[in-house]
Amino acid sequence: MNRSTLIAEIFRKKTFLCVGLDTEIDKIPTHLLGCEDPVFEFNRKIIDATRDLCVAYKPNLAFYEALGPAGWQTLQQTVDYIGNQHFIIADAKRGDIGNTSRKYAEAFFQKMNFDAVTVAPYMGADSVTPFLGFDDKWVILLALTSNKGSTDFQREILQQSGLALWEQVMSKAQEWGTPENMMFVVGATHPEAFVRVRELAPDHFLLVPGVGAQGGDLAAICRHGLNKDCGLLVNATRSIIYASSGEDFAEKAREEALRLQSEMAGALT
Amino acid sequence: MNRSTLIAEIFRKKTFLCVGLDTEIDKIPTHLLGCEDPVFEFNRKIIDATRDLCVAYKPNLAFYEALGPAGWQTLQQTVDYIGNQHFIIADAKRGDIGNTSRKYAEAFFQKMNFDAVTVAPYMGADSVTPFLGFDDKWVILLALTSNKGSTDFQREILQQSGLALWEQVMSKAQEWGTPENMMFVVGATHPEAFVRVRELAPDHFLLVPGVGAQGGDLAAICRHGLNKDCGLLVNATRSIIYASSGEDFAEKAREEALRLQSEMAGALT
Repeated sequence: MNRSTLIAEIFRKKTFLCVGLDTEIDKIPTHLLGCEDPVFEFNRKIIDATRDLCVAYKPNLAFYEALGPAGWQTLQQTVDYIGNQHFIIADAKRGDIGNTSRKYAEAFFQKMNFDAVTVAPYMGADSVTPFLGFDDKWVILLALTSNKGSTDFQREILQQSGLALWEQVMSKAQEWGTPENMMFVVGATHPEAFVRVRELAPDHFLLVPGVGAQGGDLAAICRHGLNKDCGLLVNATRSIIYASSGEDFAEKAREEALRLQSEMAGALT
Repeated sequence: MNRSTLIAEIFRKKTFLCVGLDTEIDKIPTHLLGCEDPVFEFNRKIIDATRDLCVAYKPNLAFYEALGPAGWQTLQQTVDYIGNQHFIIADAKRGDIGNTSRKYAEAFFQKMNFDAVTVAPYMGADSVTPFLGFDDKWVILLALTSNKGSTDFQREILQQSGLALWEQVMSKAQEWGTPENMMFVVGATHPEAFVRVRELAPDHFLLVPGVGAQGGDLAAICRHGLNKDCGLLVNATRSIIYASSGEDFAEKAREEALRLQSEMAGALT
């Protein structure tokens, strides 16, 4: 999906919600466990319940890899089921030497029909650029992540530039990609950083995890993070998909997604 | 595999060679393409030809993921075929928030029988420590990688400590793991850095990629990198597995592995 289609979908549906699909077999409602593929069945019902309220889905690869080869099959089925009307993110945090990153890009963009993949910047230019050579496909580069460990290295100030490492990543990466094929991950748990993020990258879309279970504040993010094209994909996972562990899980997931979508609709106007 | 077994195997077999299994379907000798699973068949023959000359194998996940669910199956078969007498590394460059890293650890250590997984440090402590809670399993943390992009961020000097980022990673990570459950990746393309590496981590094993196709110098690495327990796993991939593209590929792979093993045997005495 290209940038203009994504923006059009956001304003048409009045939402910039991304629903995370970190589906764990031991958190699935027990009545689904008899299905042939409980994880796919769960995902299918979550997708049906939220399709009109979000513009993106973000399966987290770890949760599928933990199931072995069958998990990879479930992932592919899930991506196929989502279809072409949503922006689909492989939350994979990949990044390796050039020939290897190229293979990961083939895995996510060609073998499966993902629109974007999250990439870690530690290995530099040649670990990131191989993901950028595909039409309408995106790199979403880690900048300032939502977790506690984001303070370990990302906030270190670099002697030469005077920038924090995460700022240097955002700055340097703009030599590699453009707002048409690159986004940045900025965690909702750092709302104070969004002003600086918008100085560094006024036009780029940001993928913002950490709303919901991780405690991020949606209003603060909107206040400082929105740009004229919206420029945000805000992800919620556990607060939506595990809103209930009973037979009403899809209904409760919809309620939580609707709550977030309503807040987003307000912020977009 | 625990540290003492790994060390014993290194001195018994007089080798610290790790063979990378980055198997690409379009680089496999054509006579194998009629097999039911050409990638597995290729791996099987490479493993048979090198088993006595190496202590470790390192499948690179990207090359299996690029084949879709069937690739994941081939990977599992390959790991099973290697068995318990070698140290098996999932070269996966993973790392994510805590609950996700935990799932990756389950995927590689429990669902499949890998001994170690390569992890990127960018997200800090809580992205790395979930991999450390498994008996006889290892994190191999990226420090100074072998690629050109390693100069983009890893060599930046940090204002507070005066250390390069890669040095800070090696220093900080020793608060999380020990020489019994953590190794570091240091690329063979930076031989001058090994003196400093041994100041920072005298006892840890290092996984050293970049010998062979990437041009690293084995003698220089041995001179500065070996410690009393050996402390090195030196990886070669393309120079071994693609030594020939003909029917003699396994024989030629063995010749190249033997050449490296002989040099290593000399360095160990």
